[in-house]
Amino acid sequence: MINKFMSPEIIFGKGALEHVGESFLRLGARKILIVSDTGVCRAGWVDQVMENCLNAGLEYSTFFNLTTNPKDFEVTYGAQVFAETECDAVLGIGGGSVLDVAKAIAIVATNGGKINDYEGVDKLLAPLPPTIMASTTAGSGSEVSQFSVIVDSEKKKKMTIISKSLIPDISITDPLTLATKDASLTAATGLDVLTHAIEAYVSIAATPLTDVQAKNAIQLVSKYLRPSVATKSNEEAKHAMAMASLQAGLSFSNAILGAVHAISHAVGGRYELSHGEVNSILLPHVMDFNLLAKPQRYVEIAELLGVDTRGLQLMEAGKRGIEVIRQLTKEVGAPQHFSELGLHSPDEASMNEMATMALEDACMITNPRDVTTKDIKDIFSRAM
Amino acid sequence: MINKFMSPEIIFGKGALEHVGESFLRLGARKILIVSDTGVCRAGWVDQVMENCLNAGLEYSTFFNLTTNPKDFEVTYGAQVFAETECDAVLGIGGGSVLDVAKAIAIVATNGGKINDYEGVDKLLAPLPPTIMASTTAGSGSEVSQFSVIVDSEKKKKMTIISKSLIPDISITDPLTLATKDASLTAATGLDVLTHAIEAYVSIAATPLTDVQAKNAIQLVSKYLRPSVATKSNEEAKHAMAMASLQAGLSFSNAILGAVHAISHAVGGRYELSHGEVNSILLPHVMDFNLLAKPQRYVEIAELLGVDTRGLQLMEAGKRGIEVIRQLTKEVGAPQHFSELGLHSPDEASMNEMATMALEDACMITNPRDVTTKDIKDIFSRAM
Repeated sequence: MINKFMSPEIIFGKGALEHVGESFLRLGARKILIVSDTGVCRAGWVDQVMENCLNAGLEYSTFFNLTTNPKDFEVTYGAQVFAETECDAVLGIGGGSVLDVAKAIAIVATNGGKINDYEGVDKLLAPLPPTIMASTTAGSGSEVSQFSVIVDSEKKKKMTIISKSLIPDISITDPLTLATKDASLTAATGLDVLTHAIEAYVSIAATPLTDVQAKNAIQLVSKYLRPSVATKSNEEAKHAMAMASLQAGLSFSNAILGAVHAISHAVGGRYELSHGEVNSILLPHVMDFNLLAKPQRYVEIAELLGVDTRGLQLMEAGKRGIEVIRQLTKEVGAPQHFSELGLHSPDEASMNEMATMALEDACMITNPRDVTTKDIKDIFSRAM
Repeated sequence: MINKFMSPEIIFGKGALEHVGESFLRLGARKILIVSDTGVCRAGWVDQVMENCLNAGLEYSTFFNLTTNPKDFEVTYGAQVFAETECDAVLGIGGGSVLDVAKAIAIVATNGGKINDYEGVDKLLAPLPPTIMASTTAGSGSEVSQFSVIVDSEKKKKMTIISKSLIPDISITDPLTLATKDASLTAATGLDVLTHAIEAYVSIAATPLTDVQAKNAIQLVSKYLRPSVATKSNEEAKHAMAMASLQAGLSFSNAILGAVHAISHAVGGRYELSHGEVNSILLPHVMDFNLLAKPQRYVEIAELLGVDTRGLQLMEAGKRGIEVIRQLTKEVGAPQHFSELGLHSPDEASMNEMATMALEDACMITNPRDVTTKDIKDIFSRAM
């Protein structure tokens, strides 16, 4: 079997945002489209990179018109701004939604058409303009991944776009930016990191190169998510969670994901829900289901989460790890049922439609256990 | 502190060499300069990539005129072949010497002048032509690193050239190629891998991203070097050692190295010795010296090597790890003293000259403990 592994250039640490300007100069950029959202603006991070770009002799224009689950027409609009203001490079600064839109704008900027034309694996033809992705949430992993997820507004589902070209030229993470997130966003994005690491670790495309990153990310979340949710000013915890996000991102970008993300894309596209919260609800249920396919890997996950598995049967040891995750989810105050998000049991037709979408999602290909429509409906019911 | 991390695109696994042609097509190449040596040719690997390139519609010319410790004038000659045969891309296929020459040829091809003009850190101005590095020894890590080491034939010393541009576009490792190495080369290159991982792990530029790679490499060497030396056909061991080489390479390319390599470059350039053997002789002596600077890291290294450190004092636990390495070196039949390589104690003037070279080597900057001329002479005496 051939293992493939790709990583962007990574700049990580306190003060890393100050490297944006010089990094774009190295990439030969002249005018940057800064993609962000109002929350990140309010926190002051966008002002900081604007000043940094100006000091480096760069021009910029801006695009902040996007929603939590970003839509195809928002990408179209952003690409128009890119073209009309004559930009030649893209900066995404924000959480996963912002970075995914920034990447999608870069696609349409050089490949033309609509973002919907590029759904699936390896559909891009033209190379992208230089891109830098600066993550301000320890969550999506989009700052290092070959993924962008955008909502098809007509079909009301999330499209997964996968291509090596989506790996940014440079990934910048300044853990200081995490100190401006509130507790519930910290919990949801942190559990999303855990989901990335676990799905990558049990993926059928996992390799020794993705395993080391996934294992380290699981250990970091296990140790640092609680203090990170508890205290905004805990720099050690913020640093560790930012590193966990990055390592989980490197892992899943190369090993791809599984059923949690496939189902989450179908649900999240239909009802405007937080990606991190949907994942945190689905994760233990999908783990219960997948355990049969790779019990040994689940035992290792349990051990990484601090379970003493000595003397336990294989399946029992695996289950203990899932229990630890249920407990962690409760402790950090993340939702455990869809009903908590105000979602009522969907009718049979909607359920069937979502199950079909999930089965067709690119993330389902690497799930360790074979999945049927009925399996998805069962998982969904248990998570209601 | 800002962490930086870079990796090439990696293609790893049985049969990976078959991806050379299509990989060059992706990079837009038309005619490849294939850099290799006669040993690799005899093993049949060069024929295989030639056929693969032809099948992909690519042309090639070849350059095989290089020695174990490759010289500046060999690079000049190779760059002439590149220009005269109108190549536009470079493939290195072989051990560390071959890959270092292939990279050096790529430098001179677009930057002009002599390779000696680029000694040190970040001296390159023009981007390199597309490069693919295919490693056939689990050793140098050059297949993923930003390093090239070439002998200055006049000064009789090894020049270290460090630049992000030296990270190949694509790194290809086919563990099958390792099955053609004899036991003593397997031992020397395997101990070189261990040296890379340990120097990177105790480097003052180590980061969480380089640590995970270094730790995994140390564990793999600890588990698989012995069976890999013992049995050419042990595919599991070859696969693991190739992965260890790659991970140690990713680690030291970003965390840089230390006193073993700095001294080894001075010694190896002066007397035509095997880089792997010189490193395996120096490693335990430099560890004895560096222990004082980072005892906790040395304890972790001992644990990765299988030492039960419970109940031991910090320094004692660190020393146990060094003892394990002395034992491993003996077991795999690698030399432990320079006298075994036919080297007699150099005179005072030569010693002083080598010590000065070692202190000026780019690898010394990241050594964890401050080093004086006397320290180097002491280490050298103990290793005689």
